[in-house]
Amino acid sequence: MEYIKKYIDENQQRFLDELFGLLRIPSISSIADHKPDMIKAAEYWKETLLKAGADKATVMPTDGNPVVYGEKIIDPSLPTILVYGHYDVMPVDPIELWKSQPFEPEIRDGKIWARGADDDKGQAFMHAKAFEMMVRTGNLPCNVKFMIEGEEEIGSTNLEKWLETNKAMLKSDVILVSDTSMLEADVPSITTGLRGLAYVEVEVTGPNRDLHSGLFGGAVANPANVLAKMIASLHDDNNRVTIPGFYDDVMDVNPTERAEMAKAPFNLDTYKNSLNIQENWGEEGYSTLERVGIRPTLDVNGIWGGYIGEGAKTVLPSKANAKISMRLVPNQDHHKIAELFQKHFEAMAPKYVKVKVTPHHGGQGYVSPTDTIAYQAASKAIEDVYGKKPVPYRSGGSIPIISTFERILGSKTILLGFGLEGDAIHSPNENYPLQQFYRGIEAIPRFYKYFVEMKKK
Amino acid sequence: MEYIKKYIDENQQRFLDELFGLLRIPSISSIADHKPDMIKAAEYWKETLLKAGADKATVMPTDGNPVVYGEKIIDPSLPTILVYGHYDVMPVDPIELWKSQPFEPEIRDGKIWARGADDDKGQAFMHAKAFEMMVRTGNLPCNVKFMIEGEEEIGSTNLEKWLETNKAMLKSDVILVSDTSMLEADVPSITTGLRGLAYVEVEVTGPNRDLHSGLFGGAVANPANVLAKMIASLHDDNNRVTIPGFYDDVMDVNPTERAEMAKAPFNLDTYKNSLNIQENWGEEGYSTLERVGIRPTLDVNGIWGGYIGEGAKTVLPSKANAKISMRLVPNQDHHKIAELFQKHFEAMAPKYVKVKVTPHHGGQGYVSPTDTIAYQAASKAIEDVYGKKPVPYRSGGSIPIISTFERILGSKTILLGFGLEGDAIHSPNENYPLQQFYRGIEAIPRFYKYFVEMKKK
Repeated sequence: MEYIKKYIDENQQRFLDELFGLLRIPSISSIADHKPDMIKAAEYWKETLLKAGADKATVMPTDGNPVVYGEKIIDPSLPTILVYGHYDVMPVDPIELWKSQPFEPEIRDGKIWARGADDDKGQAFMHAKAFEMMVRTGNLPCNVKFMIEGEEEIGSTNLEKWLETNKAMLKSDVILVSDTSMLEADVPSITTGLRGLAYVEVEVTGPNRDLHSGLFGGAVANPANVLAKMIASLHDDNNRVTIPGFYDDVMDVNPTERAEMAKAPFNLDTYKNSLNIQENWGEEGYSTLERVGIRPTLDVNGIWGGYIGEGAKTVLPSKANAKISMRLVPNQDHHKIAELFQKHFEAMAPKYVKVKVTPHHGGQGYVSPTDTIAYQAASKAIEDVYGKKPVPYRSGGSIPIISTFERILGSKTILLGFGLEGDAIHSPNENYPLQQFYRGIEAIPRFYKYFVEMKKK
Repeated sequence: MEYIKKYIDENQQRFLDELFGLLRIPSISSIADHKPDMIKAAEYWKETLLKAGADKATVMPTDGNPVVYGEKIIDPSLPTILVYGHYDVMPVDPIELWKSQPFEPEIRDGKIWARGADDDKGQAFMHAKAFEMMVRTGNLPCNVKFMIEGEEEIGSTNLEKWLETNKAMLKSDVILVSDTSMLEADVPSITTGLRGLAYVEVEVTGPNRDLHSGLFGGAVANPANVLAKMIASLHDDNNRVTIPGFYDDVMDVNPTERAEMAKAPFNLDTYKNSLNIQENWGEEGYSTLERVGIRPTLDVNGIWGGYIGEGAKTVLPSKANAKISMRLVPNQDHHKIAELFQKHFEAMAPKYVKVKVTPHHGGQGYVSPTDTIAYQAASKAIEDVYGKKPVPYRSGGSIPIISTFERILGSKTILLGFGLEGDAIHSPNENYPLQQFYRGIEAIPRFYKYFVEMKKK
């Protein structure tokens, strides 16, 4: 597979230029004002696939942001790989913490800096370029289909219906996704598990208007204090979530598997130093990797109420709000958990406030088996490029749609992710190391080759 | 005193036009960008006093916003009344809740609507117009001094030094302030007590950057959750503040005085309905009026952390913040209380976060005696205009500088306030009923007259 290195060497600047064009489009799916940017990003992907050698590529409308679909069918009797990615990105707040503008990508210290550099423009783009390379050098060993959506960061709201409608068109032998991370650049890994997600927004309303905290303070319940108390009560002294029924469907991981997981390289001091924290935190009885890998959690993602500007204002706010999400493990149903949350939160509201719980998006967890041809092919491809066999590893993140793929399309997914922990996805200063970008482009054609070869046997 | 009604009738539209000129200046003292507006408002006051008949009026610089000083000395052997007010106002957030623009005053439903309409531009302006009336009609019975400052809403930071420096110039027999409220429009009252204030800002820092809540959630303490827990712990089950030593200096009010206070007209259902709350709240063992009048409190005035924009973002925030204020009763020292808070809040911080407490401004409480000539004169003036003897009443609000006046200038203060509970001071849609505005202008010359007459006896 000598051609791979050569092709990358000859085209690496163009690869970057083309990716930068995509990164410059501020396609933030959670902010309505960015609607036109979603269309722009989708069109950009369509052109990218056509130029790379797709037989056809179209921007397909949904009730929300469109899905880009492209394919190249070289022989219907050959296996088909379905590539999934997303062109939408997270918001950029707090913008003042960015060292360079989030939508003006630049290279510094061997990394691409931009919102979406990793998640998921950078990672998905590797597939477009690997595909182009295989087509142009005559090395494409099978059929390829692409589906690139625009609502991953808001729960893939409209993708499920689109999958149902286009089931036949999407038929494949395996789904390939690069939207996860490796343990470390020199500890290659393949994600074999994802957590589910239930996300809610809560609003606590006290008096019908903001009040003067002197004239009313002490005699009227303060919704910010009440919200704080309600949130505080969601964890017990062992840092377990107190919502009744929350753990009911959690499947305990057996001791053997836990022992296997414990072999993953992990250094708590390095971890704490990299985050600049003195002490870690989490559910009693579990290690840090277990806490993110196999246990469900509850986190405040945002909280606000009252006067948050400069200086002091003596106001007793009328409302206080929070965005709260729960990461779930396989077998926990996100609809059920969102309902349990809502019931519990509303039930515990004291009479002096009104509480409203609004569910946002959610998604189920996923476990990927390691005894499949697809996993073996992925493992071999990574080993070729990194010189080390990758570690199978359960990530704490969520890609809500992965479990839906299996349910509707009937195919397993391989999570061939090249992100790194330091990439700051969802945070200011998102970045993606150039080395990972090019290694991804090296590994992908290898996966295609091994997968098709193993399939034939 | 027939001349009063007549003069008001003939000049009422001009009074309003002139007040509107002041209300149009967005003199928000807590926001640095408004510095030029502070100067504008001070100059406006200077012109107002000169036109009203002051012998002199000057804008006197301080290390912060200037103080406007004006005087008319008709005879050094006569008593002197020192009028205090402030030209600065509170911020206007949340701006979207205002029905008309905060700095474009208008009359609707018999009320003036604008930021500062009551607090304190509207109320202080009554004194300027009453002074003008007494001068122009030859009814001024004594000397008058005005001091109108620009930092009341941020703790009168530089006024103390200015008072010390100008002590001799400010010599007076009584200080007259209209910056408080009456119980109701038909239940006139005079404020005889004010609460003190300690105001702090807290910052809880967890990891050194915003983290992906999936990849880190459950294994790293979330500062928003931690802050919620810390805030929740600040009240016990009886809604008492848990800071050690917080109540040490609170003087219990004796049963006789509590019985007297209980006679103030108050209807809990009306109160709850006006706020649209199902249940009131507060320290066990005290009535609503007691909770705001004679008991100290702790309220979150603002809280923020993480993603607070539209939609959902799965972030584990690096920081969470809150603005917290405590209303204090006489004998509680605000410096001491701010220190107790800081010590307690820092001491209870778990090791997995860092906590910073920054004290904002503060002020001492105040109790005004009812057996003075000044109180009797005020009571008689109010009774003349309202047809009812006013109720002495302890307000929950704070005017931090009042206790400083007594300490430095040696004079008692009369809190001759004409605000009403519905005026929404510090809130969106601040307003001031025209009736209260004109009644204030009627009452003030009566106070002058009675005070001077009683003094002579």
